Amino acid sequence: MLKISVNIDKNSKETIYLQIYKNIKRQILNGDAKKGDKLPSIRQVAIKLDINQNTVIQSYKMLEEKGYIKKISGKGCFVNSISEFRVEDKEMPLIESFKYGQFSDENIINFYNGTPHPSCFPIKKYNSLVNEILKKYGGDIFQYQSVQGVDSLRELLAEEFEKEDIFVKKESIQITSGTQQALDIIIKLFAKKIKPTVALSDPTYPNALNIFKGWCNIKSLDIKNDGWDMDEFEKLLKEERIDFVYETVNFQNPTGVTWSLEKRKKLLELSEKYNFYIVEDDSFSDFYYGSEKPKTLKSLDQTGKERVIYIRTYSKILMPGIGLAAMIVPEKLVQNILLIKYGLDTTTSGLNQKILEKFISRGYLEEHLSKLRKEFKEKQILSIEMLEKIPNLEIMHKPNGGFFIWIKLSENIDGEKFYEKSKEKGVALLPGAVFYNDKRDVCKIRLSFISPSLEEIKIGMEILKELLLSSVVKDSKTSRD
Amino acid sequence: MLKISVNIDKNSKETIYLQIYKNIKRQILNGDAKKGDKLPSIRQVAIKLDINQNTVIQSYKMLEEKGYIKKISGKGCFVNSISEFRVEDKEMPLIESFKYGQFSDENIINFYNGTPHPSCFPIKKYNSLVNEILKKYGGDIFQYQSVQGVDSLRELLAEEFEKEDIFVKKESIQITSGTQQALDIIIKLFAKKIKPTVALSDPTYPNALNIFKGWCNIKSLDIKNDGWDMDEFEKLLKEERIDFVYETVNFQNPTGVTWSLEKRKKLLELSEKYNFYIVEDDSFSDFYYGSEKPKTLKSLDQTGKERVIYIRTYSKILMPGIGLAAMIVPEKLVQNILLIKYGLDTTTSGLNQKILEKFISRGYLEEHLSKLRKEFKEKQILSIEMLEKIPNLEIMHKPNGGFFIWIKLSENIDGEKFYEKSKEKGVALLPGAVFYNDKRDVCKIRLSFISPSLEEIKIGMEILKELLLSSVVKDSKTSRD
Repeated sequence: MLKISVNIDKNSKETIYLQIYKNIKRQILNGDAKKGDKLPSIRQVAIKLDINQNTVIQSYKMLEEKGYIKKISGKGCFVNSISEFRVEDKEMPLIESFKYGQFSDENIINFYNGTPHPSCFPIKKYNSLVNEILKKYGGDIFQYQSVQGVDSLRELLAEEFEKEDIFVKKESIQITSGTQQALDIIIKLFAKKIKPTVALSDPTYPNALNIFKGWCNIKSLDIKNDGWDMDEFEKLLKEERIDFVYETVNFQNPTGVTWSLEKRKKLLELSEKYNFYIVEDDSFSDFYYGSEKPKTLKSLDQTGKERVIYIRTYSKILMPGIGLAAMIVPEKLVQNILLIKYGLDTTTSGLNQKILEKFISRGYLEEHLSKLRKEFKEKQILSIEMLEKIPNLEIMHKPNGGFFIWIKLSENIDGEKFYEKSKEKGVALLPGAVFYNDKRDVCKIRLSFISPSLEEIKIGMEILKELLLSSVVKDSKTSRD
Repeated sequence: MLKISVNIDKNSKETIYLQIYKNIKRQILNGDAKKGDKLPSIRQVAIKLDINQNTVIQSYKMLEEKGYIKKISGKGCFVNSISEFRVEDKEMPLIESFKYGQFSDENIINFYNGTPHPSCFPIKKYNSLVNEILKKYGGDIFQYQSVQGVDSLRELLAEEFEKEDIFVKKESIQITSGTQQALDIIIKLFAKKIKPTVALSDPTYPNALNIFKGWCNIKSLDIKNDGWDMDEFEKLLKEERIDFVYETVNFQNPTGVTWSLEKRKKLLELSEKYNFYIVEDDSFSDFYYGSEKPKTLKSLDQTGKERVIYIRTYSKILMPGIGLAAMIVPEKLVQNILLIKYGLDTTTSGLNQKILEKFISRGYLEEHLSKLRKEFKEKQILSIEMLEKIPNLEIMHKPNGGFFIWIKLSENIDGEKFYEKSKEKGVALLPGAVFYNDKRDVCKIRLSFISPSLEEIKIGMEILKELLLSSVVKDSKTSRD
């Protein structure tokens, strides 16, 4: 006999399909229906409740979409395991894990931060610039600014970009209130009648995934030590229309990978051949620990057939609260992007734009960055050195810049468990799963080395080592799917 | 002989074409090369410098792109006039009409502003609060904040809302980076598989139209002196699924209309009956010039079946550059909205949130507002008084608050022409057409009375009067479409 029975109230104002959905969901959540339990067939329910089969189909479809049940061809519908259907509930801890600043428990060793520690922020300079700018501009600085961004800032940025072999007019620079807004603009640019398709790395920056999901079809490509497998990508391009690529070619998050010149060129070549744009999220180029700043993809995109939409955030170089990014926009997209930006918030903070301008023109930014680079380089070297002594893990890629080290745990170590246990032990990091589109468990973790002190890195690594050697994080399952 | 000669340094690390570009650019900018001066031919330069002609072509192309030089077929390349290469992006006229603050030509009488004049902004208080807060919180204030908004601010707002009969927990308050972001969140909330349908006033706030367009089906309803014709609206509801209503029930922009209590109640009743949400954009309640602050729609929405998503912006009460709004969100939407907000910019400026908190808790905001109210009331009274003496126009509605007076011109006066002519005469206002979904010519104009001084109002009105009496704005067409 079936354990699950479906009841509805025909007098209720709620639609019937929703009642069925909620009724079954409740049975699953309160444990009355357990993993593997079979649901009554669509026909059975329709007959029992004297309703149309389509209504039942609709309810079951929704249960399946939310991950509560699984349809097995020829067999019927079955309740999923908790790990599968708590997708909704899983979103909150996911968010929690990204509220970087929220975890400011001072006792925790911080291997999770995606931005430098607040103690690095150039607060004094910011403060004195606020005073100076308010004195000079008064209320005008709080008025709506030009939609494209403060003119003098864009002019300065155009000159700065020239130093990096990006030749751009200030008219092609669009200031946004951060990378996320830039990505939102891009979605709105491409999402017309049908969902656009974006190709991106697997793993990738979770916030980009979060933004694209729901508005784009996502095609994920494995990222190797020097970029994608370009044959694999071209195969995809032959099969599917790709509207744009999203990628960070220098010190990618979370892998730290930097694309080879050859693959960059190939990517640009393909973008012309298959007519797609490339969104270059350049969050980490400034954090190079070798002798030279790596080139951007945009600097190669000087053919006149502009294919790269370039984004540079100032959240990481200065501080998140500044809420600023600069986009370099292909000429033919300038007007569209301007209109979209106008709809989003009219203008980005004039005060912060002026502050950024002064930070750059007075050399504060370069000074600040070289301080950070020196500090982070030391931390990266120490981290890698210590990690290499820890058994049961493999450094997937040794980057020469960026914030992160991407680590694979031994097969028998459960990533989720490891994440939980290290948190208990006072070490915060991020489980690899959050960087994948399908949230699969990947036995991987991301270590961010920029926030802890050298001393804390040492202690933290010792804790991780102990954990990895102990049995508490080992997986007793013999196989995993 | 040519005045321009090109020099490069072959030992420089900079690419040659960039050197050529910069060399010539410098000669133009410092005035050594003047308008009309001929550049050496590509061949000449290539031979002189012993480099490839393509390199020179590249440099010249870039100079041309940046507007420094002009290529004249068969003649060669010539230096452009300053006005050409310093040309500011001529943004679309549409955008221009909304860049309220951009028209800060001090000689113009400003009847177009949608926000108070920058001279009203409480800059000194802002500045001293920045100093105080940075001293207290240091870098932490520039970290990512809680996605919902700074806790202490939301707590305070919950208390403040209680004073206006809105009973809300801080958990239901979502801080956003302005009204536009709040509207963007709402679109994302409703836009799932199919385009949602929004019902709104005709005329309405153009930026809302701009944001909704493309993402929603828009149903416009005529706005009477006390709100919509509710029978007409119910008829629409019977024919079409409406997902949400967007409206400002107090001192609507541009009409200044305040909804009657009866119609508010009917709107709420219908929202339950036909299961739609109401987005209340409460931009103007604080600007009442009668004895009492008008109630919000949200304050009536206390049935437990919450239907109102409430938005209060602080752009108008404080200043646009603060980029802050508070949403009150029905409980069942809180999580979804949080996730959407997270995707948009993670968090709103912590510094500005803290500043708003202090403005409220120390009574600065109330003080500031009562000053503005007193000033605007006087301006409104004078404006209406003067308008009543002008022939060929009709004040559509005499509001007792807000920023605007909505005016109908005589049938034979062309709205667009009137707008152009008054601009020429030094009076800036907005043509009615921009407030309509279909941009039809409506022989209407919106006058904003908050920015000009009393003296300027008098002068401006005299100019408008003269114009309306003259024939230059009259329409010679016998019929209009």
